[in-house]
Amino acid sequence: MNVAILGATGAVGQTMLAVLAERAFPVERLTLLASARSAGTHIRWGGQDHEVRPPEPGIFRGVDVALFSVGASRSEEWAPRAVGEGAVVVDNSSAWRMDPEVPLVVPEVKGPALAHRPRGIIANPNWSTIQMAVALGPLQAAAGLRRVVATTYQSVSGAGEGGREALRRELRGEAAEGSPFARRIAGNVISQIGDFDDAGWTGEERKMRDETRKILNLPSLPVVATCVRVPVDIGHAVHVAVETERPLKQAEAPAVRESAPGIQVAAGPEAIPDPHGAAGRDEVFVGRIRVDPDLPAVLHLWVVADNLRKGAATNAVQIAELLVSE
Amino acid sequence: MNVAILGATGAVGQTMLAVLAERAFPVERLTLLASARSAGTHIRWGGQDHEVRPPEPGIFRGVDVALFSVGASRSEEWAPRAVGEGAVVVDNSSAWRMDPEVPLVVPEVKGPALAHRPRGIIANPNWSTIQMAVALGPLQAAAGLRRVVATTYQSVSGAGEGGREALRRELRGEAAEGSPFARRIAGNVISQIGDFDDAGWTGEERKMRDETRKILNLPSLPVVATCVRVPVDIGHAVHVAVETERPLKQAEAPAVRESAPGIQVAAGPEAIPDPHGAAGRDEVFVGRIRVDPDLPAVLHLWVVADNLRKGAATNAVQIAELLVSE
Repeated sequence: MNVAILGATGAVGQTMLAVLAERAFPVERLTLLASARSAGTHIRWGGQDHEVRPPEPGIFRGVDVALFSVGASRSEEWAPRAVGEGAVVVDNSSAWRMDPEVPLVVPEVKGPALAHRPRGIIANPNWSTIQMAVALGPLQAAAGLRRVVATTYQSVSGAGEGGREALRRELRGEAAEGSPFARRIAGNVISQIGDFDDAGWTGEERKMRDETRKILNLPSLPVVATCVRVPVDIGHAVHVAVETERPLKQAEAPAVRESAPGIQVAAGPEAIPDPHGAAGRDEVFVGRIRVDPDLPAVLHLWVVADNLRKGAATNAVQIAELLVSE
Repeated sequence: MNVAILGATGAVGQTMLAVLAERAFPVERLTLLASARSAGTHIRWGGQDHEVRPPEPGIFRGVDVALFSVGASRSEEWAPRAVGEGAVVVDNSSAWRMDPEVPLVVPEVKGPALAHRPRGIIANPNWSTIQMAVALGPLQAAAGLRRVVATTYQSVSGAGEGGREALRRELRGEAAEGSPFARRIAGNVISQIGDFDDAGWTGEERKMRDETRKILNLPSLPVVATCVRVPVDIGHAVHVAVETERPLKQAEAPAVRESAPGIQVAAGPEAIPDPHGAAGRDEVFVGRIRVDPDLPAVLHLWVVADNLRKGAATNAVQIAELLVSE
């Protein structure tokens, strides 16, 4: 396959390159693209030196799959052009996710057919949403879903290299000029990711609601999230309280998940998943599975994943793998 | 009043001394006590030098109020002795909190009468529980409570000076020998505070359930908590999803709280309370008040407080102030 990556120098773009290599993705030709600011740099991949170029008309000709990891406005500009030049776009921004003509895909979860993509674009969901959807998929299949309440612990790499650099600087006692965070993040937690709507919900919280409903194909499922940034470099954690149609017993719930693809269930209560342990891994780690003491149909889960990998790059490459086998 | 502090050299004990001075508590004589390891050190307070001594029989004679901030086993040993020697004990450990003959008190919340204390002991609740109870009190009075789901972000000072030192060392790249945490806490979050029971709940999670029910005098209220340690020095944050008997409108809910003692309500969505801003303050900060988009009787709150102050020392001194006015 001829592969292009737009946003190749960013935190997710770099991880996409690592994941393509690790999974031995059949890359015939690799085109690395980034903004003018990063263009001209060289990246070594597959034993070869690749120059990073700015995107320009015609650059996607002959490209089979274009993995995009840029902001929504650049994606809106370049995705239709890439499709027009013959590529399938797997897009990691929020630009296309809620478009009814764009499938929003977590490969482990039976969702909309990948083949039906009238726009030629397939959307990669929001980070926290992906890991929660992987954990919810088997519960949906086994017992039906009635309500989801999520509370997140999201690492600074969710704000890109700029977020990681801001935390590093603050920890060194330096001013973090140009920090993407509204407050100091070192030694702090900030309950704001994205902009507020009139009812007080943030962009990230709306994404978790809207995208989870679309991925699970349950458009009216009650899903509510509270999203919080924590001073962690890589790895998002989510507490999920999920009410199922049919109550699941404590012993039964882990079994549902152990048989599910992409999930690693903690061996026991002491084996708590944490971001430090999940960083660098492709699985979604699920632990602390507890039946609510008052409501027997409610399960509490602790879901952790590497946001740059399964939350972004790995999920995108998995989608590309499905395109290879088409 | 003659005041004794047992555990005077610890994180909470030091804060008790600061709060007694700030609030101009009428201290006639001050007795500072700590374990043999810390005994012999000197602490300056009220313009005088105080030697820290180990507790010994007779030391509480003539003491009016003894503020305890030591582990449960030392409290079990010394509280009855202090009471036997004539003191009222305000205890910050978990030893006495669930004893039906011991009032568990958050002064802002109308709870059990302080005067009825057959054991001579008054218990100070768990940190996260105090700040949540302060936020829930006015909602209980205005609309009745039906269910509470809490998810916490708890700072390392909740594990005492040893917790703070472990984080500082890890951030400097040193080994944190003797860390109270099961894992690395720098750059990580750990969903374990206390020991696990057979159903997978931790000690801290059981405290939040049992103590909230006792403080609010609602012994069968469904309360469930997931407690998580975060790499923050001082300040606990809690996301609370609370279902009330009567639905509260978004605009109405803040008003309920603004008129409540000890609470500072965020002026708007951008004014998100955070641990960094709450550290050093005595109020409980409530923000991000949102009506659940699917369940109109559910409110989501973000509740932040300085765990060493309102979560421990300030609450204990407030209880002592009530004893002065008896």
